[in-house]
Amino acid sequence: MNLTEIGKKAKEAASYLSQLQVSYKNKGLKYAAQALLEGKKEILSANQRDMIHAKMSGMSQALIDRLALTEERIQIMADGLLQVASLEDPVGEVLSMKERPNGLLIGRKRVPLGVVGIIYEARPNVTADAFGLCFKTGNAVILKGGSDAIESNKAIVHCIRKGLVEAGIRADSLQLLTDTSRDITKKLMRLNQYVDVLIPRGGAGLIQAVVENSTIPVIETGTGNCHIYVDEGADLDMALKIIINAKTQRIGVCNACESLVIHRTEAERFLPMLQKKLAEKNVEVRADAQACLQIPEFILASEDDWGKEYLDYILSLKLVDSLEEAIAHINYYNTGHSEAIITRDYEHAQRFLNEIDAAAVYVNASTRFTDGNEFGFGAEIGISTQKLHARGPMGLEALTTTKYIIYGNGQIRE
Amino acid sequence: MNLTEIGKKAKEAASYLSQLQVSYKNKGLKYAAQALLEGKKEILSANQRDMIHAKMSGMSQALIDRLALTEERIQIMADGLLQVASLEDPVGEVLSMKERPNGLLIGRKRVPLGVVGIIYEARPNVTADAFGLCFKTGNAVILKGGSDAIESNKAIVHCIRKGLVEAGIRADSLQLLTDTSRDITKKLMRLNQYVDVLIPRGGAGLIQAVVENSTIPVIETGTGNCHIYVDEGADLDMALKIIINAKTQRIGVCNACESLVIHRTEAERFLPMLQKKLAEKNVEVRADAQACLQIPEFILASEDDWGKEYLDYILSLKLVDSLEEAIAHINYYNTGHSEAIITRDYEHAQRFLNEIDAAAVYVNASTRFTDGNEFGFGAEIGISTQKLHARGPMGLEALTTTKYIIYGNGQIRE
Repeated sequence: MNLTEIGKKAKEAASYLSQLQVSYKNKGLKYAAQALLEGKKEILSANQRDMIHAKMSGMSQALIDRLALTEERIQIMADGLLQVASLEDPVGEVLSMKERPNGLLIGRKRVPLGVVGIIYEARPNVTADAFGLCFKTGNAVILKGGSDAIESNKAIVHCIRKGLVEAGIRADSLQLLTDTSRDITKKLMRLNQYVDVLIPRGGAGLIQAVVENSTIPVIETGTGNCHIYVDEGADLDMALKIIINAKTQRIGVCNACESLVIHRTEAERFLPMLQKKLAEKNVEVRADAQACLQIPEFILASEDDWGKEYLDYILSLKLVDSLEEAIAHINYYNTGHSEAIITRDYEHAQRFLNEIDAAAVYVNASTRFTDGNEFGFGAEIGISTQKLHARGPMGLEALTTTKYIIYGNGQIRE
Repeated sequence: MNLTEIGKKAKEAASYLSQLQVSYKNKGLKYAAQALLEGKKEILSANQRDMIHAKMSGMSQALIDRLALTEERIQIMADGLLQVASLEDPVGEVLSMKERPNGLLIGRKRVPLGVVGIIYEARPNVTADAFGLCFKTGNAVILKGGSDAIESNKAIVHCIRKGLVEAGIRADSLQLLTDTSRDITKKLMRLNQYVDVLIPRGGAGLIQAVVENSTIPVIETGTGNCHIYVDEGADLDMALKIIINAKTQRIGVCNACESLVIHRTEAERFLPMLQKKLAEKNVEVRADAQACLQIPEFILASEDDWGKEYLDYILSLKLVDSLEEAIAHINYYNTGHSEAIITRDYEHAQRFLNEIDAAAVYVNASTRFTDGNEFGFGAEIGISTQKLHARGPMGLEALTTTKYIIYGNGQIRE
């Protein structure tokens, strides 16, 4: 099937889904979850084909781990769909309704986005997750997954569509591009007539490629070069506990801490404590010259280090003379994700919250909390590091837009 | 000055403006308005230079009219800035604040977007208008106006910056690109490091070019192929009054009606009434075959007509057999701007409001009301026809984003 046909079908499905009551949407999610469980064998054997191919082509172990499916992982996918079914549907809420002086009643109503395109890498769990959130909010979905996971994705999508049909819902609510060439991806990114929004999910390279090539509006889910600033007079035990948590609780995630900024007056006491704990966790520190003079184990940082999202057991570290210098450094090098200050000073806390330009700004807490579940959204489609539409963890609301509904009785404009 | 330097200065100004209290912002707007009035002579003589150049290069009368400034138009610009000063500042509002089970207090606060780029045509009034709205919301502005208005724009920007400085505010809050080449525009559209959002203002060609070439998020302000559907059993006098208003009250605007959809049962009675009134206003009708058979003055429409935004004394007209057919036709050909139904039927009204996919959907009122002032926003930066971030008339809020502010006392993630 060509892309235009897929786009047309998605548009038709979107129109249908926008009018579907939430009870049917929840039924669809439950049947889809059931179908995933019933299709376990089919999915696992498709995944085996992807795995053999991946091993033969020399894929790294880390990527193979993300590609691999097990019975447990399929159960988690199915549970994810059930969890989304249990969330409140934001669609249909009228956010405001006011009467104008001329008697027009103008309301603003939450509605689905329409057709959402998801471009992602070889992570088959994204297939079910992204479908669930988009479907619950009444959007039709076109998925373009990585070619290394194509067999797994086909099997998962086949099961979900079967579940939808059993629930009496149009299968075209979910479509997968089976042609995974770069050419088709480029075309998808320019299918403005049929696709309302593109959401890339994956590494910095994928996201950058979508931002550069798409003419469709993109929600950028992003990289996180997250900082923790230890202020003069901070509770150093708290600082240490938060830094260890933010750096090592999970290494490869976008809200992990990548860089420390430390007030110089605390260096003498804090750096040895820090080095000891980080060494226990095998974290390498790339620090500025003065910190390196104090702690021989630190490695001298290069300019490149300040802007780097390591996603590894490495931290950069810079000493500063003031809150102003800390804020300026963070605002220059950060990626607009999550930033924290550890402080006892009221004014410094307020200034950090006000002046740091990022999706989430913390006082005395770990950056690891930037997450849809932790924020109470129940689930998330990603964490937006751009400023338009959605910023920070994106729950169901981020997958909706609004329209104005206007009730008149013959008004014309004078 | 090169573009990177301009971007850097804008970013610095944005950081400064984001912390500027509203009283200072209002002072800046008032001083800028005053400076425009004091600089009338300078602005008018600069405009004369643009006008002479435009006439020599054979610019059309319509475009020359939009380029021309008068004392009155400068007064209107200054009044516009004062009006924006009188509007409430949305920045700083905390939209929600909730305590999570772990004691984290998570709030969502409205903040400026940062640096806004405006790309527009040879309409010098946009220079002051766009500045006013962006400045009030704490954004730094980079303007790229049409080359035909460069002298006028330079003079206006010079006055505004002078006013800002007199108010004690950084002049770099507003910068104008004096190089108006296509090359510089292309570079501006890829200045992601410094520019947070681009807003093109102008015709379909300009907007299309920005959407296609920008890697910065774009707010698409759009074209309007707006429909009015006259339902079976509608109040035909009301329908006529609304159609005449929506088509002819102002011809060249995006919320003007461009296409009629009429239930076939009303054709016999309504089309003659309609033709008479439209003929009085010199509106040409391009209709489907059956309507043409009934009204000899109608011209047979081609497929192209259904999708056309005429911005002229022309209307397309199609007869349909049902509400469903009307909705399908409108959803296929519309541009997502403003659509209206004229009806007496409760269920039809509700279905039209629900099923039409557009920024503003009306029952029994003219599409001409889709406008920031008419919606009660006080002023607007444009009318968004895309679904991300803002949809419909964009007031001050559309020029803001949010950030999460999180108050902790040592929380780490388990």
